[in-house]
Amino acid sequence: PSSIRLAVIPGDGIGVEVTAEALKVLQAALPQDVKVEGTEYDLGARRYHATGETLPDEVLDELKGYDAILLGAIGDPSVPSGVLERGLLLKLRFAFDHHVNLRPSKLFPGVQGPLRDTAPIDFVVVREGTEGPYTGNGGTIRQGTVHEVATEVSLNTAYGVERVVRDAFARAQARPRKKLTLVHKTNVLVFAGSLWSRVFTAVAAEFPEVSTDYLHVDAATIFLATQPERFDVIVTDNLFGDIITDLAAAVTGGIGLAASGNLDVTGTFPSMFEPVHGSAPDIAGQGKADPTAAVLSAALLLDHLGRTKASPALSEAARRIEAAVEADLAERAANATPRTTSEIGDALAAKAAVS
Amino acid sequence: PSSIRLAVIPGDGIGVEVTAEALKVLQAALPQDVKVEGTEYDLGARRYHATGETLPDEVLDELKGYDAILLGAIGDPSVPSGVLERGLLLKLRFAFDHHVNLRPSKLFPGVQGPLRDTAPIDFVVVREGTEGPYTGNGGTIRQGTVHEVATEVSLNTAYGVERVVRDAFARAQARPRKKLTLVHKTNVLVFAGSLWSRVFTAVAAEFPEVSTDYLHVDAATIFLATQPERFDVIVTDNLFGDIITDLAAAVTGGIGLAASGNLDVTGTFPSMFEPVHGSAPDIAGQGKADPTAAVLSAALLLDHLGRTKASPALSEAARRIEAAVEADLAERAANATPRTTSEIGDALAAKAAVS
Ligand SMILES: CC(C)[C@H](C(=O)O)[C@@H](O)C(=O)O
Ligand SMILES: CC(C)[C@H](C(=O)O)[C@@H](O)C(=O)O
Repeated sequence: PSSIRLAVIPGDGIGVEVTAEALKVLQAALPQDVKVEGTEYDLGARRYHATGETLPDEVLDELKGYDAILLGAIGDPSVPSGVLERGLLLKLRFAFDHHVNLRPSKLFPGVQGPLRDTAPIDFVVVREGTEGPYTGNGGTIRQGTVHEVATEVSLNTAYGVERVVRDAFARAQARPRKKLTLVHKTNVLVFAGSLWSRVFTAVAAEFPEVSTDYLHVDAATIFLATQPERFDVIVTDNLFGDIITDLAAAVTGGIGLAASGNLDVTGTFPSMFEPVHGSAPDIAGQGKADPTAAVLSAALLLDHLGRTKASPALSEAARRIEAAVEADLAERAANATPRTTSEIGDALAAKAAVS
Repeated sequence: PSSIRLAVIPGDGIGVEVTAEALKVLQAALPQDVKVEGTEYDLGARRYHATGETLPDEVLDELKGYDAILLGAIGDPSVPSGVLERGLLLKLRFAFDHHVNLRPSKLFPGVQGPLRDTAPIDFVVVREGTEGPYTGNGGTIRQGTVHEVATEVSLNTAYGVERVVRDAFARAQARPRKKLTLVHKTNVLVFAGSLWSRVFTAVAAEFPEVSTDYLHVDAATIFLATQPERFDVIVTDNLFGDIITDLAAAVTGGIGLAASGNLDVTGTFPSMFEPVHGSAPDIAGQGKADPTAAVLSAALLLDHLGRTKASPALSEAARRIEAAVEADLAERAANATPRTTSEIGDALAAKAAVS
């Protein structure tokens, strides 16, 4: 396409700084004739304090018109826990049916993770994004008394499970190792677990080349800490996916490097790309944040648009950004001089630029 | 006391082998005048296949009469997932009101964990054991159709949360660092999260010497992989506790070393002690299993009975077993000759014996 229209939600804390760098690199990686029209949306803690709004309906409506959304980070200690997460971030994921939450985990050459063993790590977690215990279903009675009862309901539908499992199988099929691991807790959560297992087995029959296995979520954390190289593609529910992708990020060098895409793979709604890390209010505004996760999220964005718009130019730009990050990380290993957020962004932009 | 009455449930797979060693060491560590009356209960996959029973009511009733229960491991691939877990293991935990699931994590000298960084790790997770998504609450409609919906309900009560939070504060208070971390997912699971947070804050007021903090479960996994030494005591719900204790075990050298106690701290019902590991059918019956986790669980058992029966002899025996494990692990580091399950048990028994 000659232009891509992006809604940009820098959000809170370091979200602002890292998003600026991500846009810088994204722009540099695209050929001159592809115009990026970025429109910034002021959403997050500041707006909430100013107007009480988290995500007004008009804004949600407007956002529908974009090719994609680039998001920085949401959350601030000044806002009660859950308000922005549920009123803004999760509202976007649910309203835009982001059922495939894609989280690649790769140990880039030169990056020192926390593990002693350094076998190559390169897997991707396909986290369900619209169901599970994330639906806000639950409640409280007798709040504040000794008789209080609070519930949280995990909702799982055949429709919702099947589409994400199918997506994960297709991704596994397209990778060299062709391996897919289902992660759940079927021995305790027997109702949801049975649904996930049955759907997984049924869809597997359509992908005979993909080898499959199953791990309970607790055992999966052990393997992530001791043998992460065993994983190729993982598919799991919303909550387990939340937990294991943070661990996966830690194991591959930290959430400063972990990117994610919240995809509506049908293309009905814009997909949204965001670093896995949070707003890190303690270091916000100091130029200390590593923009790499946001930059890699921008690469995921271009990769996604490249596929859905069948545009090789966008896909190539995505590859260039990934290569730039890879090269930069290798250099960081050799050169310990700390750089500011925008210095890292500048270096990545220079490396990703069309030559 | 002059005798302790133990119900022994070896269970499945390596459960049988490791329990035998645990009993051997327990016996050796106690002075001659303390008699151990162990009664074995045949429960697990074999019994299920033979009779269809998981935990008959008469057995449950009988078990109530013991001072404590020593359990090996439950589960076999020949039994559908969930049947033994829910019909036996969780039934025991729920029937005997095991609300404090205690899981110490310690990196013993000489043990090489998967982390590059080897700061001393010594914390304990107090996992709630009778609520959360473990209650079996949930269901399925339209099973097997494309319209299937499956739910899992997490139940949380002020009564249940308060007693485990209070227990965790008391444990933190008794430790040198006096630090307690609440782990939950309050930004998404707002109903349960709010209950846990409010109870935590309220009980904290009674323990002014204990310093507290809070981590979302996803962030907690990052810290467990990168800075486990930051933790002293963690309190968390049943499911999060399941997940992070497996990770904690991995980080401290593997589930071959991780012990646990399922406590009814009121003493109404017998508490139950078991290694965190499973039945490992792949290595069962080969003398390859490491009995150390079961042996450390026996030490937790003696420690618990020492407190509840105000018996210094039992507490001292617990200390001797821990010291024996510590010494043996240090020797293993120096001597790489692999030993069988019973050779390790013999060595631990000799070291733990009253001199
Ligand atoms: C901020 C929070 C609501 C979110 C989640 O739990 O999904 C975050 O942890 C993530 O993983 O994107
Ligand atoms: C076997 C299973 C039911 C159990 C649990 O989930 O509690 C186990 O993983 C544990 O941690 O003791």
